[in-house]
Amino acid sequence: MHQQRINKVLNEMQLRGMDHLIISEPSSIHYLTGYDNHPGERMFVLLLSLDGQHTIFLNKLFYLDQSLDFNIVWYADTDDGAALVAQHLVNAHVIGVDKNWEAKFLMRVMELANEECCFEIGSICVDHVRMIKDHKEQELMRESSRINDLAMDQVIQLCAQGDLSEIEVTEKVTEIFQSLGCSSFSFPAIIAYGANGADGHHEGDETKLQPGDSIVIDMGGLYQGYCSDMTRTVFYKEVSPKQQEVYNLVRLANETAEAMIKPGVKLCDIDQSARDVITKAGYGEQFNHRLGHFIGRDVHEYGDVSAAFDMEVEEGMIFSIEPGIYLQGDFGVRIEDLVLVTKDGCEVLNSYTKDLLVIG
Amino acid sequence: MHQQRINKVLNEMQLRGMDHLIISEPSSIHYLTGYDNHPGERMFVLLLSLDGQHTIFLNKLFYLDQSLDFNIVWYADTDDGAALVAQHLVNAHVIGVDKNWEAKFLMRVMELANEECCFEIGSICVDHVRMIKDHKEQELMRESSRINDLAMDQVIQLCAQGDLSEIEVTEKVTEIFQSLGCSSFSFPAIIAYGANGADGHHEGDETKLQPGDSIVIDMGGLYQGYCSDMTRTVFYKEVSPKQQEVYNLVRLANETAEAMIKPGVKLCDIDQSARDVITKAGYGEQFNHRLGHFIGRDVHEYGDVSAAFDMEVEEGMIFSIEPGIYLQGDFGVRIEDLVLVTKDGCEVLNSYTKDLLVIG
Repeated sequence: MHQQRINKVLNEMQLRGMDHLIISEPSSIHYLTGYDNHPGERMFVLLLSLDGQHTIFLNKLFYLDQSLDFNIVWYADTDDGAALVAQHLVNAHVIGVDKNWEAKFLMRVMELANEECCFEIGSICVDHVRMIKDHKEQELMRESSRINDLAMDQVIQLCAQGDLSEIEVTEKVTEIFQSLGCSSFSFPAIIAYGANGADGHHEGDETKLQPGDSIVIDMGGLYQGYCSDMTRTVFYKEVSPKQQEVYNLVRLANETAEAMIKPGVKLCDIDQSARDVITKAGYGEQFNHRLGHFIGRDVHEYGDVSAAFDMEVEEGMIFSIEPGIYLQGDFGVRIEDLVLVTKDGCEVLNSYTKDLLVIG
Repeated sequence: MHQQRINKVLNEMQLRGMDHLIISEPSSIHYLTGYDNHPGERMFVLLLSLDGQHTIFLNKLFYLDQSLDFNIVWYADTDDGAALVAQHLVNAHVIGVDKNWEAKFLMRVMELANEECCFEIGSICVDHVRMIKDHKEQELMRESSRINDLAMDQVIQLCAQGDLSEIEVTEKVTEIFQSLGCSSFSFPAIIAYGANGADGHHEGDETKLQPGDSIVIDMGGLYQGYCSDMTRTVFYKEVSPKQQEVYNLVRLANETAEAMIKPGVKLCDIDQSARDVITKAGYGEQFNHRLGHFIGRDVHEYGDVSAAFDMEVEEGMIFSIEPGIYLQGDFGVRIEDLVLVTKDGCEVLNSYTKDLLVIG
């Protein structure tokens, strides 16, 4: 159990007037307790209380391979787990709830809780603490991204062969990450050729490369529980003037955003700076997503670099900067790095080149 | 869009007094609309209404590659998607909510909805329809399980080599399923040697086989969107009298349960029959999970074969029968088939032998 992290969360709860907090995100429970479990559809809850009586609710199917300094409530598949949680809320007033908690548990607890209770989304209390990476986490994130740079080089070399379909390249990614010391990928890699690269979430298929195709490579590894995430876009055999124009624009947007990052700057303003570059050139509509997301134990953690997120940047935050331009039916370009906010600027965790590469 | 399936869901809504239903499970939306999308943390909702005005809420990031006979509400990352859902509920009275809908969306909709609205878990309306597989689905489930029988044989042969660790075998499973015509596995395979087999959800590690080890192999493939799931337990080089006793007991529990399945029998009674066999022999505590689960497009669908589930079996249902005995620190045995309920009995979809196998 990580008492220091828990104390920070309790502090956030107090600031926000919550006396109890229902945490259901497995990665948050792991972060706070050191206990790693992913029980899928079964209820798994860490209930924090300002009075210091913290409780874990765990299905009997999962046995503990470590001792935990928490009260543990075991339940069976035939028990009403949510009712057990409700029993621990008899003295609660303001109950924070994990943003992703499933309706089937939440509505049952709301039904059984006493009428004076009030529920609100409370995962910000953990998420805010998780946003700021401590020294050890920063080291792991650096190493995870260093490995991703090496993996990117191998994947680009595979693409340069020219004879592998998207899915054939994708299937080699796990092996590459594992050979470099990762346990796995941090998310299923996106390898998208030509027009497929204009679909922000294309799933790899049998498509083969044609000269003049853009290749969007968006991938990351999982190193000692910490995620990397980087995108590069390269071109196969040839590149048109329009592709060059779009590429240079996306690169400029990426670098403009990275240049302004330092403590005190608002996340929405970083998004705006990249968006302005692209909008002025007439491609605003074709950049149809947020500029970036936070990352750490999960590949998408709480926190956006977007117009909707006006939080100020703080030292120790790590997030992605990933502008893109997507021309439907034609091609797509995205360039993404992870950045770590330092005392007076940021450290870009990826060093793989952003020069325009024509491969094959 | 599958009008017949939607009509069945509307019928279930009417029976339960719901006028609106919020469906967020991607596999349910796919089942009802034919549109397959997995937008992760982003809101994705199909709102059904008894008045016939159905609406899909979709993030602008995802473009539609097909036409849909629904009203479509597009939203951006910077929009309040849940507020858009709430706007469509101004005339609603009783709103069914998907059991897995995330608290962040649900609480926002509850906050904005008019005060007279009442919310309840409503996914049963879809789940109940999905429980009964139509003719085409039955064919796909048969084929998926037939492939799983073939895959099981290959995996057991790999184990028989004796030199592969759990994780080395696990890593070959995807390839095996793909070579047999599946797109992938239906869930990460469990390959557990010796004492690891006593942990119902062991993750494969570097463990190697020792003579006398049990080998629990729990796996399934994904064939044209439909899942298989089977477990067999075999022994490496030798088997002790105690292992034989436990094995025969689990097999008897499995076959006793399967023999009683027919329309009208309660799912909890099927669970009880298998549990009785094991409990009478003194291992009741070591069978620490439900007897089975429903399956189809998802490997775990709504519906349990457990003491808590007293629904009657109907023709066309498909679920697993998977009793197990787990002796902590020693070994585990689980034997699992999928069964399809027929007019007057059941068809066991797996035909891989349940005779005790000593391999290697």
